[in-house]
Amino acid sequence: MSNKKKGCNAERELIHLFWNNDWSAIRIAGSGSSHYPSADILASNIKKLISIEVKITKKKNKYFTQKEIDDFRQFSSRFGALPYIAIRFPRTKWYFLKLDQIPKKTQNYAISENLAKKKGIGFDELIKGI
Amino acid sequence: MSNKKKGCNAERELIHLFWNNDWSAIRIAGSGSSHYPSADILASNIKKLISIEVKITKKKNKYFTQKEIDDFRQFSSRFGALPYIAIRFPRTKWYFLKLDQIPKKTQNYAISENLAKKKGIGFDELIKGI
Repeated sequence: MSNKKKGCNAERELIHLFWNNDWSAIRIAGSGSSHYPSADILASNIKKLISIEVKITKKKNKYFTQKEIDDFRQFSSRFGALPYIAIRFPRTKWYFLKLDQIPKKTQNYAISENLAKKKGIGFDELIKGI
Repeated sequence: MSNKKKGCNAERELIHLFWNNDWSAIRIAGSGSSHYPSADILASNIKKLISIEVKITKKKNKYFTQKEIDDFRQFSSRFGALPYIAIRFPRTKWYFLKLDQIPKKTQNYAISENLAKKKGIGFDELIKGI
């Protein structure tokens, strides 16, 4: 399966999770190809709107450039949405992290599996805590 | 050009209009195929969020079923978005109508070119009036 297809499936899995838990959620078209700042998912429970970048990785760390973080933050701010990174490592559940929980290492930001487990919250906590 | 392709191009045209006028906008993926209520576009100017169903037609009337209207209204309500139909007839500009401006005729709702011109607002008015 291509990485794009895997990413799409991961996004759909989260979309279903939201709808099954009384949230509404949509996938954003062309989020990887549009030249405007974007995100992968917007989800709402009427009271709150959150924006999500979805990452699945087989590696120990997932890296983000300053531009990726800046664009995502800017997009979220313009939509009045609270930005989260949703990340899943091999054989882990989904972890959700706020942007200010992601440390900068030299040039790039990085989420390690350990960081995700230590600082991230699970889906249930995400939708209950907002 | 297929109808789907034309619809996509029409959505992209509106997306550019929003970004070029200090709004942010996204196209929603799979809005015609997902089994969840959806819309074509979400646009925000930080203060306000609007949801848009985009229609281009070569005919004199564009029809909407009760279910289409209900789903769109429900989706918009769950996202806290103000719903608009964006419609363009041959050789007209874009007109934006609120759902309560669309009359029900027997079973379906209908927007005629005359109605759009009489009740609809243009893009400039849309983004200034919100």
